[in-house]
Amino acid sequence: MSRYKKANSIKSVGIVGTGTIGASWTSYFLAKGFKVKAWDPGDNWEVKLEEFIDNAWPDLEKLGFSDEASKSNLSLCDDLGEVANEVDFIQESAPEQLGVKQDLFKVLDKITPASVIISSSTSGLIMSEMQSNLSTSERFVVGHPFNPPHLIPLVEVVGGKMTASEVVNWTIDFYNTIGKHAIKINKEVPGHLANRLQAALWREAVLAVQNGLASVADVNAAVAQGPGLRWALMGPHMVMHLAGGKGGLEKMLTHFAPGIEDWWQTMMENPDMDQQLHKLLVDGIEAEADNKSIGELEEERDARLIKLLGMLRETS
Amino acid sequence: MSRYKKANSIKSVGIVGTGTIGASWTSYFLAKGFKVKAWDPGDNWEVKLEEFIDNAWPDLEKLGFSDEASKSNLSLCDDLGEVANEVDFIQESAPEQLGVKQDLFKVLDKITPASVIISSSTSGLIMSEMQSNLSTSERFVVGHPFNPPHLIPLVEVVGGKMTASEVVNWTIDFYNTIGKHAIKINKEVPGHLANRLQAALWREAVLAVQNGLASVADVNAAVAQGPGLRWALMGPHMVMHLAGGKGGLEKMLTHFAPGIEDWWQTMMENPDMDQQLHKLLVDGIEAEADNKSIGELEEERDARLIKLLGMLRETS
Repeated sequence: MSRYKKANSIKSVGIVGTGTIGASWTSYFLAKGFKVKAWDPGDNWEVKLEEFIDNAWPDLEKLGFSDEASKSNLSLCDDLGEVANEVDFIQESAPEQLGVKQDLFKVLDKITPASVIISSSTSGLIMSEMQSNLSTSERFVVGHPFNPPHLIPLVEVVGGKMTASEVVNWTIDFYNTIGKHAIKINKEVPGHLANRLQAALWREAVLAVQNGLASVADVNAAVAQGPGLRWALMGPHMVMHLAGGKGGLEKMLTHFAPGIEDWWQTMMENPDMDQQLHKLLVDGIEAEADNKSIGELEEERDARLIKLLGMLRETS
Repeated sequence: MSRYKKANSIKSVGIVGTGTIGASWTSYFLAKGFKVKAWDPGDNWEVKLEEFIDNAWPDLEKLGFSDEASKSNLSLCDDLGEVANEVDFIQESAPEQLGVKQDLFKVLDKITPASVIISSSTSGLIMSEMQSNLSTSERFVVGHPFNPPHLIPLVEVVGGKMTASEVVNWTIDFYNTIGKHAIKINKEVPGHLANRLQAALWREAVLAVQNGLASVADVNAAVAQGPGLRWALMGPHMVMHLAGGKGGLEKMLTHFAPGIEDWWQTMMENPDMDQQLHKLLVDGIEAEADNKSIGELEEERDARLIKLLGMLRETS
């Protein structure tokens, strides 16, 4: 018998670290009806967290509350022990520094019952390095969300060398149960998968500016007015399946892929990220942003994301 | 004074080549109220074209007809001369073979009044090579749409060495006037820009399958449930602007880009596109497609695309 509770019987979640990612997770778990215990070592974190939740709450309502959704299910804890002792699952979103995470995991390892799975939001660190020298390393796993986590469904789940495969599968199951779309990453590589895909695209987008191929705004439009519209509906392999016409991906691979392989040969370069390129990029984005603040751009993005997610759900 | 008509005074369009791309352009121009003269050397092309238009028509109506939109504005021509003689603009969508396009351009060069701009839908060929040895090479330009062209706004405009810069600007202006989002590509490179960006992403997506990082379906979800949702709303540089938080792209470039540059160092590989990999990809996509035909998948895509485009327009 498993030492872990069934994924669909989890009632309470601990949040360790309440920066942007942790606060977003907190909002999501509250909207899904969980009791949430949160803790952060920073100054004034309680106020910032409650502000974040207040901002996110109307958006989460549009996406659909669980019956038990309530901001009053949040407990602000005075120390880590208070979180660790009384929850069924922990989502850790501490700063992206290996030493910080290792020290934190050593404490969680000792004070958290071994039946509680601990999932790290890390985007850039490797679980095998974070989980070394723990007595319960098998229940530490990566559950990497995508920004903003309370809106974007994707969660990448990857285990370290010491993570039990049962824990990886449990964590995928748990996230899917609460309305996320969890995927299984089978190997530990820098950036997991989605950020690598994004980095590959961005490299070519940076090179296009550096090489004078197009302006920053036109490079952005080359995605958002073109393939980006399809990527909201299907992934890159499914796009290629449809690019093959009636013959599907098989035909695409035999007839069109060789042309793309030729392009790949011309795409083996990294940009020189020097001051000149920084200036080109920043000037370009400022021209396109047209004096809109980051806050305004985020609000626009989130308002559209909610409509997009609603449309995708209605048509699925 | 320019020899070209004003972009907003164009009334009639010639379509040369009525395969998928040409038929899609035809549908779009008809929906925007143009008189369209079409010609194709293939068997039975008239029936296929009219079928395509009939299928696309309800979608185009949802996106918004011009007042003069009418299928009856289409003339099916018996030969190329009939198209070339009496139109204000030509969109060429012949097969992607350099010799075919060169031969075609030589004819168009002679029989089309020099005041008519001729735009090629080519995705993979270089205008400088297609326009050599023409007496009116200056009015040949690339206007590369994105599939399906009657739905996706993006058109990439790029001139060859002999193309007049006035023609490049005119063509951008014309496409924007008719509701497309045209961008200016300043150099001739294989795949223009958007397909290169797509190829860069797909390479990493293929490697993820080849290296056993994730299943085909999970790689697709890593885009469509994550960054793909944002790319429908904004391009890759704008995503990075928001990734920098309040500090914007400037902060992103100084604080987070160095981590991405490290990932780039691990992304200098091309997949081995062998039979084994083909099988992995095709088996994966078939599992995900779950017996849906290409036609059904296309219908789903287009129904969602129309809703997505409508939402973006309403919120812009």
